[in-house]
Amino acid sequence: MTFPVVGMIGGGQLARMTHEAGIPLGIKFKLLSDTPQDSAAQVVGDVVIGDYRDLATLRAFAQGCDVITFDHEHVPTEHLRALEADGIPVRPGPDALVHAQDKGVMRARLDAIGVPCPRHRIVSDPEDVAAFAAELAGDGAADGFPVVLKTVRGGYDGKGVWVVRSAEEAAEPFRAGVPVLAEEKVDFLRELAANVVRSPHGQAVAYPVVESRQVGGVCDTVIAPAPDLDDELALQAEELALRIAQELGVVGHLAVELFQTRDGRILVNELAMRPHNSGHWTQDGAITSQFANHVRAVLDLPLGDPRPRADWTVMVNVLGGDYPDMYSAYLHCMARDPQLKIHMYGKDVKPGRKVGHVNTYGDDLDDVLERARHAAGYLRGTITE
Amino acid sequence: MTFPVVGMIGGGQLARMTHEAGIPLGIKFKLLSDTPQDSAAQVVGDVVIGDYRDLATLRAFAQGCDVITFDHEHVPTEHLRALEADGIPVRPGPDALVHAQDKGVMRARLDAIGVPCPRHRIVSDPEDVAAFAAELAGDGAADGFPVVLKTVRGGYDGKGVWVVRSAEEAAEPFRAGVPVLAEEKVDFLRELAANVVRSPHGQAVAYPVVESRQVGGVCDTVIAPAPDLDDELALQAEELALRIAQELGVVGHLAVELFQTRDGRILVNELAMRPHNSGHWTQDGAITSQFANHVRAVLDLPLGDPRPRADWTVMVNVLGGDYPDMYSAYLHCMARDPQLKIHMYGKDVKPGRKVGHVNTYGDDLDDVLERARHAAGYLRGTITE
Repeated sequence: MTFPVVGMIGGGQLARMTHEAGIPLGIKFKLLSDTPQDSAAQVVGDVVIGDYRDLATLRAFAQGCDVITFDHEHVPTEHLRALEADGIPVRPGPDALVHAQDKGVMRARLDAIGVPCPRHRIVSDPEDVAAFAAELAGDGAADGFPVVLKTVRGGYDGKGVWVVRSAEEAAEPFRAGVPVLAEEKVDFLRELAANVVRSPHGQAVAYPVVESRQVGGVCDTVIAPAPDLDDELALQAEELALRIAQELGVVGHLAVELFQTRDGRILVNELAMRPHNSGHWTQDGAITSQFANHVRAVLDLPLGDPRPRADWTVMVNVLGGDYPDMYSAYLHCMARDPQLKIHMYGKDVKPGRKVGHVNTYGDDLDDVLERARHAAGYLRGTITE
Repeated sequence: MTFPVVGMIGGGQLARMTHEAGIPLGIKFKLLSDTPQDSAAQVVGDVVIGDYRDLATLRAFAQGCDVITFDHEHVPTEHLRALEADGIPVRPGPDALVHAQDKGVMRARLDAIGVPCPRHRIVSDPEDVAAFAAELAGDGAADGFPVVLKTVRGGYDGKGVWVVRSAEEAAEPFRAGVPVLAEEKVDFLRELAANVVRSPHGQAVAYPVVESRQVGGVCDTVIAPAPDLDDELALQAEELALRIAQELGVVGHLAVELFQTRDGRILVNELAMRPHNSGHWTQDGAITSQFANHVRAVLDLPLGDPRPRADWTVMVNVLGGDYPDMYSAYLHCMARDPQLKIHMYGKDVKPGRKVGHVNTYGDDLDDVLERARHAAGYLRGTITE
């Protein structure tokens, strides 16, 4: 059989779960991982250990891959261009991926195509931040503060993000020497995510819009579909995500993180061009998971049905707690709820680290939420009965 | 984390799919495979290439495994006893597994515990076969022929099985020098399978009883649940399988292949103590798949809910056809049916070889059956539009 080889750069849990989804598809999976202990490197057969920042390593890895895709967005854009010049399909390609790598590029492009975003400006020092705040104040926002500052590259899970209440507080983000993006702090009702998958020939599917609840800047709970979401706003969010995928030439999974404002608008917060935490519910809650559809998309295979299999699906992340051994808690959770779907990443437990997630589904949202929260809390050690 | 290591002996598709199911469970998976090209060896990270018939190889492999389980039933019973004596848990253990390895031992044991089976006798030559046929004839069956002959060890998928119409035809089965079991040819309405999973501490779950349709001695289609099956007969089949699992001390998945006779009885045809083709539907059709529950059972973890997620789930095996490259047919099937679940084994296509299966589910059995049959036929090349 001439089933293709998908090369995945990065050995985290997204690569682990993409490998899992690729097994039934019959495709061959090759992994470039930092260490043999990485989450995906523990379970993949064909693993190369190496540094994704080194072009020679990338070029050697790409030999024998039919397509290259990613567990993370940190591969230097110029290296991706070099791989493309070598004739290796890179999906998503560097021209799309740069929008998930650089928040400045992303905001400029979304502005250009008329996608609603929080007000924003690239700032070069605390005085610039004060000027931006004054501009926001002109629109009626008290003194314009607080303002959100983000380094344009390298942030994730709340890292590289600061909420500052004055120009004096705004010194730290500039210390890294990376350009900084200032954004208004949106008065949002809640956060939503619109997940879509697009293939090179332009087929695209949209998953139901979900509600995403963050704790301390880290995704905690995802509810699919977003409860009490107006049909028209849901449609608007799905269309927005599909339009972004098309305009930016995304191939594979695109997560569009959204703010739902108190005055009924949606604004784009972040973009991710890979399977995303807000789509983990699809493993057990959708006909085709985001991981399977990402693989299908990067291979230009016809996409699978994204519709839900249950009325409600809830995902809750399992964070590490103080106790390093989760196995006995794991037994308890399985015994308590035989329908619980646990997804462990094989990572060492460290306080606050994402080490897994649980999915629950059913027709009663309260019950589904309670079961997921209980299991995740019990695994972490914050619930003990 | 102290998540355990499951050692799997045998690199076929059952090991491949068990590995897939083990990834979200966070367990570590170690494989003993004949060659690096075997179905599971292509996708597992920790693979030892070696001969399962060699005790030294088994002993070296078992180092670092918390439990040993199987892709097939061919490991010599005495080797399993040696591993147990070394202190390695073997699940299912040799005292249980011998009933799936040796059809003579299986029949004797099922007789002893009062499980209904086809009439049978160990025979040593064609004259014995004639005498057995004469006995059947005494019960009213014309001349007693045809009679089914099976070598007690080594058969699968119709291999090692003969249907003979006279003593003269009965010479071949004796040529291998293996004991031969003679059985009445049951006048069955259809074949059923009762799949159960049992853990060392005695927890057990029963999947819905399925109908299994064979073509040329090879499983072709499985329908879950078995259509039009009387509730009482279904319960009887589930109870029978649970009782066999308990009496024989099975740990892990047990498939009990059954004949439903025209006069409304069920008789045990074969036993398999590992994930089984009649349970592949559970991957997409049950809350917990047979593979996940097998892993949970051999680790003595609480078992997952075996109930179905859809009204009907159909599995059809994909056999190799004349054309070695299935990839273009695969694209077509995905495009035609975005809900289709394809499971490919990474095996080279040879005519008649099982190279994958498809699952479909829904609330209209005719539609679900048609979609699965079409996809499997198209992949094989017997349907071209």
